[in-house]
Amino acid sequence: MSEKIPQAVIRRLPRYFRYLEEIEARGEDKISSSRMSLEMGLNASQIRRDLNCFGGFGQQGYGYGVAKLKAEIAHILGLDHTYRVIIVGAGRIGQALLGYTSFVKEGFDITDIFDADPNKVGMAVENKSVRHTSDLQEYLGRHPVDIAFICTPKESAQSIADFLVSLGIRGIWNFAPVDVAVRRGVSVENIHLSDSLYVLTYSLASNAK
Amino acid sequence: MSEKIPQAVIRRLPRYFRYLEEIEARGEDKISSSRMSLEMGLNASQIRRDLNCFGGFGQQGYGYGVAKLKAEIAHILGLDHTYRVIIVGAGRIGQALLGYTSFVKEGFDITDIFDADPNKVGMAVENKSVRHTSDLQEYLGRHPVDIAFICTPKESAQSIADFLVSLGIRGIWNFAPVDVAVRRGVSVENIHLSDSLYVLTYSLASNAK
Repeated sequence: MSEKIPQAVIRRLPRYFRYLEEIEARGEDKISSSRMSLEMGLNASQIRRDLNCFGGFGQQGYGYGVAKLKAEIAHILGLDHTYRVIIVGAGRIGQALLGYTSFVKEGFDITDIFDADPNKVGMAVENKSVRHTSDLQEYLGRHPVDIAFICTPKESAQSIADFLVSLGIRGIWNFAPVDVAVRRGVSVENIHLSDSLYVLTYSLASNAK
Repeated sequence: MSEKIPQAVIRRLPRYFRYLEEIEARGEDKISSSRMSLEMGLNASQIRRDLNCFGGFGQQGYGYGVAKLKAEIAHILGLDHTYRVIIVGAGRIGQALLGYTSFVKEGFDITDIFDADPNKVGMAVENKSVRHTSDLQEYLGRHPVDIAFICTPKESAQSIADFLVSLGIRGIWNFAPVDVAVRRGVSVENIHLSDSLYVLTYSLASNAK
């Protein structure tokens, strides 16, 4: 059924997932759309419409079962299994992602980190030894990897993505400040941190009026 | 007029801005909504509706003047002046942001970086010496700062935000993996990298079907 879910709803699902994790950690087992609306700052009818996209587990006067709703959203988001991940680019962003241990809990197993700079190869980062990108082909032949985090300079991001896709990687999470394009059947998310910063400056400029 | 722009349009403006920067760098001086639609992957009528929110600079059969449209969007986003920024938290993410030099070009002047850990104080990061957070009050009394990037552990993010707001900071860009709340009149953007990762796993799961 998830094929029918609009992209705008998909983009909101991680936020619902985070919220449900939070209230589950607080020990809550059911939640109403009106309370979600208050706490998440979203319109209650939009929440009901969004959740109806995948079956709608809410009952009039009862609300949603937190565990069931969270499990269903996790399933739609593909979070009900684990992913093997490599990082390409051992600069500060690559190192920061390797050290961001909450990924592991969430089912992302970062197996190794690579860099093209011989000066970085062999360097220890979070108990991993940086490997040379020239080892990627042999490495991926031996280890199945689902997702690559690209943390290279922008000049090399597209070529490394092409190379990884040619070696069978089907998911690219790109932190280089340039959009990486992939062929149909491969998934990519390009991170644009500046977009969020510009929404902040918009808000600052509006508040200053 | 920007007060009337819906939040969903605001969230798309940075993307228009990036696109216009790109085509300006390629030497283009006008652009049609239909070509923007093709190249950005957005619906052409949505682009026209979005850009109409702030006056609509397009002319039938001509399109939009790139420089004028870009300047107008920059103005709405508050990007027509510079911001003084400090970073609180000198771990890998704080260091990565300090080293992310493209911010400087975009008008964000990162003046200093702070940490609560005495072992990090005095450490050199990108020609800055890490200062102790206990110096913040005196520092902010002498230096006007517009925005703080919070890169602390999640346990201290809210308290450091409260402290910074009490010292007059009006913009918080929060990278700690917990939502920071601020009072009316203060602006905050909470970064949730995992949201983008979950959209990627959704796409991977969909492609695998």
